Amino acid sequence: MIHMQLTEGQRKAIEAVNEFADKYFDEESIRQWCHSMGIPSYVYDAFYESPLGGYVLSKNAGGYDCPFLDRVTMLIEVTRRAGATLPFSSDMNSLAMFSTLRKLSQEEIVQEYAYTDGRIRFSQAFTEPNAGTDAQAVRAQISTDPDGIYLDGVKTFVSCGQFSPQTLVLARDPIYGQRDGGMSMWLVPINIEGVSTFPINTVGQEMLCPAAISFKHVKLKPSWQIQTEGKLNSMLKRQYGLGRILVCASSVGLALAAMDDAVAYAAEHEVKGRRLNSLPQIQEKLTDMEIKIRAMRMFVRDAAVAADERGSDFMLETALMKRFVPGAATEVASEALQIFGGVGYTDATRVSRIWQDCRGNQIAQGTDEVMAGIAAKGITQRAQSREF
Amino acid sequence: MIHMQLTEGQRKAIEAVNEFADKYFDEESIRQWCHSMGIPSYVYDAFYESPLGGYVLSKNAGGYDCPFLDRVTMLIEVTRRAGATLPFSSDMNSLAMFSTLRKLSQEEIVQEYAYTDGRIRFSQAFTEPNAGTDAQAVRAQISTDPDGIYLDGVKTFVSCGQFSPQTLVLARDPIYGQRDGGMSMWLVPINIEGVSTFPINTVGQEMLCPAAISFKHVKLKPSWQIQTEGKLNSMLKRQYGLGRILVCASSVGLALAAMDDAVAYAAEHEVKGRRLNSLPQIQEKLTDMEIKIRAMRMFVRDAAVAADERGSDFMLETALMKRFVPGAATEVASEALQIFGGVGYTDATRVSRIWQDCRGNQIAQGTDEVMAGIAAKGITQRAQSREF
Amino acid sequence: MIHMQLTEGQRKAIEAVNEFADKYFDEESIRQWCHSMGIPSYVYDAFYESPLGGYVLSKNAGGYDCPFLDRVTMLIEVTRRAGATLPFSSDMNSLAMFSTLRKLSQEEIVQEYAYTDGRIRFSQAFTEPNAGTDAQAVRAQISTDPDGIYLDGVKTFVSCGQFSPQTLVLARDPIYGQRDGGMSMWLVPINIEGVSTFPINTVGQEMLCPAAISFKHVKLKPSWQIQTEGKLNSMLKRQYGLGRILVCASSVGLALAAMDDAVAYAAEHEVKGRRLNSLPQIQEKLTDMEIKIRAMRMFVRDAAVAADERGSDFMLETALMKRFVPGAATEVASEALQIFGGVGYTDATRVSRIWQDCRGNQIAQGTDEVMAGIAAKGITQRAQSREF
Amino acid sequence: MIHMQLTEGQRKAIEAVNEFADKYFDEESIRQWCHSMGIPSYVYDAFYESPLGGYVLSKNAGGYDCPFLDRVTMLIEVTRRAGATLPFSSDMNSLAMFSTLRKLSQEEIVQEYAYTDGRIRFSQAFTEPNAGTDAQAVRAQISTDPDGIYLDGVKTFVSCGQFSPQTLVLARDPIYGQRDGGMSMWLVPINIEGVSTFPINTVGQEMLCPAAISFKHVKLKPSWQIQTEGKLNSMLKRQYGLGRILVCASSVGLALAAMDDAVAYAAEHEVKGRRLNSLPQIQEKLTDMEIKIRAMRMFVRDAAVAADERGSDFMLETALMKRFVPGAATEVASEALQIFGGVGYTDATRVSRIWQDCRGNQIAQGTDEVMAGIAAKGITQRAQSREF
Repeated sequence: MIHMQLTEGQRKAIEAVNEFADKYFDEESIRQWCHSMGIPSYVYDAFYESPLGGYVLSKNAGGYDCPFLDRVTMLIEVTRRAGATLPFSSDMNSLAMFSTLRKLSQEEIVQEYAYTDGRIRFSQAFTEPNAGTDAQAVRAQISTDPDGIYLDGVKTFVSCGQFSPQTLVLARDPIYGQRDGGMSMWLVPINIEGVSTFPINTVGQEMLCPAAISFKHVKLKPSWQIQTEGKLNSMLKRQYGLGRILVCASSVGLALAAMDDAVAYAAEHEVKGRRLNSLPQIQEKLTDMEIKIRAMRMFVRDAAVAADERGSDFMLETALMKRFVPGAATEVASEALQIFGGVGYTDATRVSRIWQDCRGNQIAQGTDEVMAGIAAKGITQRAQSREF
Repeated sequence: MIHMQLTEGQRKAIEAVNEFADKYFDEESIRQWCHSMGIPSYVYDAFYESPLGGYVLSKNAGGYDCPFLDRVTMLIEVTRRAGATLPFSSDMNSLAMFSTLRKLSQEEIVQEYAYTDGRIRFSQAFTEPNAGTDAQAVRAQISTDPDGIYLDGVKTFVSCGQFSPQTLVLARDPIYGQRDGGMSMWLVPINIEGVSTFPINTVGQEMLCPAAISFKHVKLKPSWQIQTEGKLNSMLKRQYGLGRILVCASSVGLALAAMDDAVAYAAEHEVKGRRLNSLPQIQEKLTDMEIKIRAMRMFVRDAAVAADERGSDFMLETALMKRFVPGAATEVASEALQIFGGVGYTDATRVSRIWQDCRGNQIAQGTDEVMAGIAAKGITQRAQSREF
Repeated sequence: MIHMQLTEGQRKAIEAVNEFADKYFDEESIRQWCHSMGIPSYVYDAFYESPLGGYVLSKNAGGYDCPFLDRVTMLIEVTRRAGATLPFSSDMNSLAMFSTLRKLSQEEIVQEYAYTDGRIRFSQAFTEPNAGTDAQAVRAQISTDPDGIYLDGVKTFVSCGQFSPQTLVLARDPIYGQRDGGMSMWLVPINIEGVSTFPINTVGQEMLCPAAISFKHVKLKPSWQIQTEGKLNSMLKRQYGLGRILVCASSVGLALAAMDDAVAYAAEHEVKGRRLNSLPQIQEKLTDMEIKIRAMRMFVRDAAVAADERGSDFMLETALMKRFVPGAATEVASEALQIFGGVGYTDATRVSRIWQDCRGNQIAQGTDEVMAGIAAKGITQRAQSREF
Repeated sequence: MIHMQLTEGQRKAIEAVNEFADKYFDEESIRQWCHSMGIPSYVYDAFYESPLGGYVLSKNAGGYDCPFLDRVTMLIEVTRRAGATLPFSSDMNSLAMFSTLRKLSQEEIVQEYAYTDGRIRFSQAFTEPNAGTDAQAVRAQISTDPDGIYLDGVKTFVSCGQFSPQTLVLARDPIYGQRDGGMSMWLVPINIEGVSTFPINTVGQEMLCPAAISFKHVKLKPSWQIQTEGKLNSMLKRQYGLGRILVCASSVGLALAAMDDAVAYAAEHEVKGRRLNSLPQIQEKLTDMEIKIRAMRMFVRDAAVAADERGSDFMLETALMKRFVPGAATEVASEALQIFGGVGYTDATRVSRIWQDCRGNQIAQGTDEVMAGIAAKGITQRAQSREF
């Protein structure tokens, strides 16, 4: 990125990250955190007590009143320094949900259940098997009988689903969801009867510890429903958009980490007496990686700015971003791995882990294939309005 | 591009282009101009008399005192409207040379020879067969004998080389080029003895009408030498950088034209009763074209801003841009052609011409391969300075 | 290809081509033939009188009784030597039609109208605007009134449509086409009332001189109908398959020509004192070109063998081939052009023409997009039959 | 592959694999074997006692007298059925070494040390850190003093390096390696003083359990030297070639497994009521995967046939194959993973493991980058000999 493109806010976010990372991050620890599928409490606490916490928390929970771009910049840089997908990206996603709710609906329920000390207390149970990020395909179902309200269904890829005391469930609901096209949202404790959680072993991104949650005839209290007041659709639209930006920010951070390592490795190692970074084949790799990274940053930045400016109408920007960024990040990581050679395929380097982490983001929050449908609509509309 | 990213200056440039193009451009005329390898005098005059001229001319020749980005924006948009490579891109390249000279050396000679009425009077004879844009590889040679100073050599891909009364020649020169590492530059009339010009038939970009120029024992006047005062190297560096930006701006304009046509075609045509833009395969194409175009624009904009801010030190930005943009433009044009199907392969559409024009820019002003060497150096240096 | 993979028949075909090409082909002539959109009569005659004619003509018209693979090999090699799309590929396509007819229906009509001296006398008018190679989308229409039978419609991309005395028209036909799902085929003279032909200017492949033909209330004689006897569908299926193989053979020949030129150029030219073929970037290009060419050959060979062995059931092989080969050929040609640098973008080399010719084959005989649908069906069926 | 292309020998190999796999392979076991980094003894024994053993063992050790292509076919199919990299690929590589030795040098030593019951008893210690598969870069060193012969150095990526009782070491050797350009080979027991082994944790391919082995002043017996008699160079050349073919065969098997799973998944699952394999985007993926797999098979087959026919002169075929196949296999696996969606990124499917296994083969036995140099030489030579 050329100098001018970093705002003062972004610079501050980067400095705060570097200060925190210098103190808490080293490769040995990161590897251990991946292995144990989570970061230790004291680091988690330190994060929220440090200036970084303010970029995760929403304003009314004590967070900064800053552009979304600053929050995104923090996530990019903290991921870059860790060289791994951090649970904070998932926290930010939940808090994005939270900010979405705040903007559009009532405060009390959220406040009561969601947090007390600024920590995330709920996971998001939106995705279902064979459904992906598509509200239309949701099959979890609310039903009533004289006894009460019941929830049945299965959710999957719920980040921290086993460890968050509540989970926010999206379900079909012909009764309470009438004003929202037959859908409703509920904040459900996971320690009640009928709720079971199962860990999911993914290829990478271990710190997100995703889970499947099944709900079998789970009795719900009416107060657990989130009052969406006919705005659920636009809330979800915005939430998916923000979620995509955060996933892509994480991808950019991972790609930057791979790039940092590859550039350093190519500057230090030789083959047959020639420094790696003087070989045309390595130079082409590094150049194409840099090209991809700059483009990735641009798409994330544009989408973040659009999210700030346009409520829930930034689908074109997020779809283009989501289609491009995660795949490009995997490519960058794969090239970095290749520059390392054999050792890149082992756990003696970060690049192998980064490559594995990157791959997951090509699926999370909507596949590349789904994005084309969304983007093409936006492209056609813009053409018809002859907008620049 | 998202709304916020267009400056006021850019908006004005776009409006000026649209006004001009509405008046002078139609596909029938453009095709005719390509066929006759040049635009008619009255259009050429109208262009320079219109507000657009101010974006081409340098400030002290009556042009605007505006950011380079505004000039670039004008070139993008005028190329987009024409759907063809216009000779103005070549004029701008020569005038960039002129502004480079002005900044760094004497004014008189340039003023005397270069223009009187704000028009470009000289072409640039830098490239040589088997040399490309590499000053090191120049073989044109200055020599002296008691009779005078002589120039021998062959230059190629000189835009408008047959029609400009003078040409600016870069040559090896052990005598007058001592302060500039053995190189010097001369403004040579093409109607003198020993100078011969030959047209080059290119695959596209006909309006640039490139020529080869051979110099056989051409006697030079001392006053024709451009006084570079030991700054030739940084002048050339800047000039190559500006030239690359202009070529890429032209590529972006061509890609936008292809995109405009493809989006319109896909919105209007059907296959088996389904509108083209509702087919997933077409949607993926349009989405990936849009992704490429946004990335292309970003690289050109970043390089243009860097050129304004950093004298001759914007090689990394231009190398990344030059490696990415022209190739991506050809891909966009090729996909547009594919969306049109059979008719896209004929002269009944603009996309076939655009595709042919685009290909040339992957070679002009330095190939993709050369750019990797330049960029890799910049990437490594930045890493060592731990710059963001 | 490794040595063992050429059959004796293929070797003979290659030798015959080389003998003919040594005598009649030189770049100056080829360029002239492209410019004048056809090869001179004496070369055309010499071709059919040489052993090469036997590979074009069907057996009962005096051609060889040889595997289709040998015919394909001849076409690959003759195209390779010319470095241009030759009209013989179009002749072979028509004769493939002819062999299809022979196999499946009556002989007399064909014999009477189609040829006397072994030369092709008819073009194929199958494709329509916005229809491509899809029989379902045909709109040309047969109708009757008390006066007679009439044909209305427009056909496009009819190779040699202006110069062949007859054209074979595929049309909707509720009357005479009852046994063939409402379609029929007619051999129509083009010099009769109501038939008009219009040349189409394509980006390349000039020697094919494609035309559009419009039929306005053209009165047909009953004897002009081709008796398809309920087998039109499988005839068309086979014909499209053969046509795709021939287009791909032409692509392979073009790619080989580009490769030959690029390898020779890289062996002869230097940049800064280093031979081009010793530079890693050029080595990677040449290697990837060779990889593509070998894969291309394999797909064409497999499809040609399948065509011989399986009647009309070789759709999977032709679809995979058609999706891969023409695009890969364009890439090979584009890389060859890049190796030549600036001169590759001019008419001083064959590679620029080859690149332009190649592009058309990505559309001809069914686009890449259409092929995926056909191939996926075959892939799924094979999996279900647990075939290897 | 079309039917005709399988020889009788290949068919038999495939049948033998299917019989064995039906009995011993199920996904639960395979996963367990990966986890425990090796297959259980009883399966290993059963393999060598089954007809499959004959494809691994060399002829004079009781193996079949069959074309190398049959052995390769067995490896492809057994890997396909397992959906994982099996240790037999490594055994075959060692036995290829063994067959290379047999062909070219003495038998006794090999027989004494290498096997008794037809099992592989030695690993290959060729690769070194920062050296890859390049004999020139070897630094392990033989030295002598009055006491005896000593070996110092470090080898890496030695498959089964911790479990094989001997390891075959390639070292610089100014004394005993005089006739072989200063290199020699030694079969060294790993349980003697000065030898230490360290496991390497790779991203995938766990059953190969690679190790690093360090040799610190290890005293060697003269009888451990392999008598190479001035033929070491051509032995190594052949050995690298065979090793590359085996790695690529493993890649093909992995890609086929991913394809099998993806085709089945797409035939069974639906999205919004539409079967996956009826969606154009999935159809394009499946088609392109099939195209890659057919090309991959062809390159492996051509190289295997060339290895049989040409002693040590099949570098061009193996270099083209090695550059293309492993990368294409990773792409196929990645697309299969994408078709599965979220579940593809978890250990609930084979495709995630296959994707991780595939990546390693892009580095093993020589990177894509190294192959270009080798291939380009072969391409240029062939052009100069005007061979077809």
